[in-house]
Amino acid sequence: MTRERHPTLIEDASGRNASVLILDQTRLPREAVMLRLATLEDAAQAIRVMQVRGAPLIGATAAYGVALGLAEDAGDARLAYVIDTLAATRPTAVNLHWALARMRRVLQELPLATRREAAWNEARAIADEDKAANAAIGQHGLPLIAAIHAAFGKEKGNPPNPLSGKGGDKVRQASPATVNVMTHCNAGRLATVEHGTALAPVYAAHAAGLPLHVWVSETRPRNQGLLTAWELAEAGVPHTLIADNAAGLLLMQGRVDLVIVGADRIAANGDTANKVGTYLKALAAREHGVPFYVAAPLSTIDFA
Amino acid sequence: MTRERHPTLIEDASGRNASVLILDQTRLPREAVMLRLATLEDAAQAIRVMQVRGAPLIGATAAYGVALGLAEDAGDARLAYVIDTLAATRPTAVNLHWALARMRRVLQELPLATRREAAWNEARAIADEDKAANAAIGQHGLPLIAAIHAAFGKEKGNPPNPLSGKGGDKVRQASPATVNVMTHCNAGRLATVEHGTALAPVYAAHAAGLPLHVWVSETRPRNQGLLTAWELAEAGVPHTLIADNAAGLLLMQGRVDLVIVGADRIAANGDTANKVGTYLKALAAREHGVPFYVAAPLSTIDFA
Repeated sequence: MTRERHPTLIEDASGRNASVLILDQTRLPREAVMLRLATLEDAAQAIRVMQVRGAPLIGATAAYGVALGLAEDAGDARLAYVIDTLAATRPTAVNLHWALARMRRVLQELPLATRREAAWNEARAIADEDKAANAAIGQHGLPLIAAIHAAFGKEKGNPPNPLSGKGGDKVRQASPATVNVMTHCNAGRLATVEHGTALAPVYAAHAAGLPLHVWVSETRPRNQGLLTAWELAEAGVPHTLIADNAAGLLLMQGRVDLVIVGADRIAANGDTANKVGTYLKALAAREHGVPFYVAAPLSTIDFA
Repeated sequence: MTRERHPTLIEDASGRNASVLILDQTRLPREAVMLRLATLEDAAQAIRVMQVRGAPLIGATAAYGVALGLAEDAGDARLAYVIDTLAATRPTAVNLHWALARMRRVLQELPLATRREAAWNEARAIADEDKAANAAIGQHGLPLIAAIHAAFGKEKGNPPNPLSGKGGDKVRQASPATVNVMTHCNAGRLATVEHGTALAPVYAAHAAGLPLHVWVSETRPRNQGLLTAWELAEAGVPHTLIADNAAGLLLMQGRVDLVIVGADRIAANGDTANKVGTYLKALAAREHGVPFYVAAPLSTIDFA
């Protein structure tokens, strides 16, 4: 079952002036409220106070912030001011600066009269590229999940559950061929314009009708697991929120078929930086021979 | 610096009738309040609602509960009722049933007239044995910490800290030979009558003047790390409360010299059951060659 989902960011051309609607993530998971960004300051504020979060979504919001900021004046001084204002909202965000640099590069070459429309087009391109890259991650990851599911089919059901009779195995009992995915933090669609990175293969598999269950780690100290649980619920994907401490036990018990996480940055040698706690899960997955995948777009790889 | 510490459980003979004072652990770490147990029902309630917690402390409280319950009638029927009442407070607690069986065995052989005094004596013996066993754990563990400290001395200070300049290394900078201990959950004096199990060596080393710092994992989902932080603060032992997720990073960075945890049960083959999350720390400690110790009294070993 899939409920109607709240978009993380969409253009709204219904009013007199174009604006952008975002899902206010500071109010999740308690309530889902769409917020209108109509000015540069709205966009800067949304990034500053984390109404949008997740590197790709911050980048797209900043790009739209440039378009909003050029509404009445697209001159060089204004363009510089708009970009500086947005750049100051979150000094450490790589995607934010990448998106602003791209907007500047495109716009500064153009005559003033065409800048405003070009800004909207470029922001839309950034958002669309994010959706496309994440959809591609989903399609790349789908066969990994499908292969596990197919192997279950040959075994005529999952291996017996060592905690049979306890509450946690309801999902397996209800659907013996369910693939159990573990993730960490929120690398789902809430961190992106659409699809997510780590969760893109989950959504692709869900759309393909594969029976899934996701172990969602709480992700202390900031509890981003609650956001992951919220978006999985909205998409109708069965899941269980767990204490971070429980990951080792579930892996030891054979109750996890694969782990998929996102990445903050991937070095040229393959070393990956991600949310604190990822390393403990990786060690436990290796110990128990459970495949561990990092799902990220090319832009996360730092070739320097 | 050591502040005056609140005992977890002491006899109080100052009133007309003997009673027992306990530290109400449901109010920690917000406030430290001593609570008087004057009746069987007081003791049963204290165990039931977790005003006392930790297997050894529950056992001792139950033993004193028997003594309190025999105040006006030490007959066989009353003895059986008292023991049944206390046994029903926490059905799964091994130490509770062990303590009650011991009280029953001692008391049922005795003439009625001597049972009441014998009950107080036996409860006191159980409490004193717990203190002695834990003090012995401390003395056994002390050389492990002292040896690490002595090795630092030969190196003229700790190895360079990979996060030099970040907040976390204040302790090492202030005292280059500080031994960094990591623990999990609360296996400190609050779980026992005195000294604790995992923390007994920490307290012994602190008393011996060795410079220490303890990484205290939050221990989700029940946050027993807050109790560990509270009792370390009361004892004046430097410590830092961390998210459970941070344990792997600290071990990887060489910022942990040894890990000491308690145990719920140790099987005859050495397999150890302890608070969820212990396993993830054990895997990460092994990965980085950091010694990992389980500190427990003989009674925790299940020879069956």
